[in-house]
Amino acid sequence: MRLRVDLLPHGEYSDTVIVVDVLRATTTATVFLEHHADRLLFSGSIEESLGMKAENTIIAGERGGLAVAGFDLGNSPIEAGAGSYAGKTVVMNTTNGTYAARVASASAKHVLLGALRNAHAAARKAKGLAVEEIAIVCSGERGRASLDDTYTAGVLCEYLLAMGEFTLNDGARIALTLRRQVGDPIEPLSSSSGGMSLESKGLGEDIRFCARISESTIVPTLQSTQDGQVIFVSS
Amino acid sequence: MRLRVDLLPHGEYSDTVIVVDVLRATTTATVFLEHHADRLLFSGSIEESLGMKAENTIIAGERGGLAVAGFDLGNSPIEAGAGSYAGKTVVMNTTNGTYAARVASASAKHVLLGALRNAHAAARKAKGLAVEEIAIVCSGERGRASLDDTYTAGVLCEYLLAMGEFTLNDGARIALTLRRQVGDPIEPLSSSSGGMSLESKGLGEDIRFCARISESTIVPTLQSTQDGQVIFVSS
Ligand SMILES: [Ca+2]
Ligand SMILES: [Ca+2]
Ligand SMILES: [Ca+2]
Repeated sequence: MRLRVDLLPHGEYSDTVIVVDVLRATTTATVFLEHHADRLLFSGSIEESLGMKAENTIIAGERGGLAVAGFDLGNSPIEAGAGSYAGKTVVMNTTNGTYAARVASASAKHVLLGALRNAHAAARKAKGLAVEEIAIVCSGERGRASLDDTYTAGVLCEYLLAMGEFTLNDGARIALTLRRQVGDPIEPLSSSSGGMSLESKGLGEDIRFCARISESTIVPTLQSTQDGQVIFVSS
Repeated sequence: MRLRVDLLPHGEYSDTVIVVDVLRATTTATVFLEHHADRLLFSGSIEESLGMKAENTIIAGERGGLAVAGFDLGNSPIEAGAGSYAGKTVVMNTTNGTYAARVASASAKHVLLGALRNAHAAARKAKGLAVEEIAIVCSGERGRASLDDTYTAGVLCEYLLAMGEFTLNDGARIALTLRRQVGDPIEPLSSSSGGMSLESKGLGEDIRFCARISESTIVPTLQSTQDGQVIFVSS
């Protein structure tokens, strides 16, 4: 089986994809489902999110790490973990992560959301679904590869290589080398540009939360893209 | 000063850029100038190259590692090193490298071509030219980050860090970690997808040539982009 890492979303995906935005969208998405949200809807824009305000709907997301006027919640996994969302739809829109998830959802057969928090569970689930290729798609930071997502992709690759044989692309080799060179996830997450930006806004606790590996077995999984809506559930 | 590595060409560049396509365009470009070519003209397409056939002009390049019908030379640094080009213009067009060089040339103040072959000289020259930022722009492989170029960027970063203080972006951290983890350049170059493709076509000698570090002091340097022509000389 092929194991590829794309350091940025690129082109079409034919089989199983794990989308990574460890700081913070895919971590926070996992937490919403841990706290019993019925489903996550990844919207295409802030305007689209605001148009979805309704009973039993939570509007969440950020721009540049900050909350958006009119939204119910930001993009903080700690804040998300303080609530309970049974019977609710959470609508998310973030700077990089929702874009990557929407690109992958446009072509892949299976799309999962992965972070350090659910890394082992996401790797195991992808291995069970994939026929010929697992692609780990990093969200990156405004069109450039990011240290935090590349490191997280390396952790996912490490788990996958323990589960079977794969041929690796260049991105997977880069990510694995980074993971093997840097043991402690706090280092790449806090020195990444996304991490430094969060720290400067007083959100350093979020970085430490996102750095904890495989504490969750919840894997947000694409349910449908019906009517252009990209919906993830805990399956 | 800022030191950034873009694992793929991206957006605009404001100061000094080193473009990297170690397998093989920027290595071969360096060799053409070592062998006394007057100038290198990076064309936008095969058709444009063919339209430039003239006396004292050598048409060189490749598609998918192979020579192009009607071209005088391919993209092999060993083949390039067998000739002498005094008084001649070499027109180059390759799959990834000429595109990256043209993107950088559209906005940057100074553009250099870097490879392992001229890594130390390229780093030193960039350090002398740059005012606020050195950007190392990897060509990558068909829109995805490549192991060989990322490794080469790490070698350039290592030289630059020995010459002064820099703030690093995420790409620079990824490239430096790769360089520090993998000492011998033969390993990343031959296991990269570009390297494996060359090996499969019997061009393994080119990989070993491209892996030799800092044997040349020639740095192809953007002379002008007059009339949309992207011309490099040994300055
Ligand atoms: Ca991010
Ligand atoms: Ca190349
Ligand atoms: Ca090339």
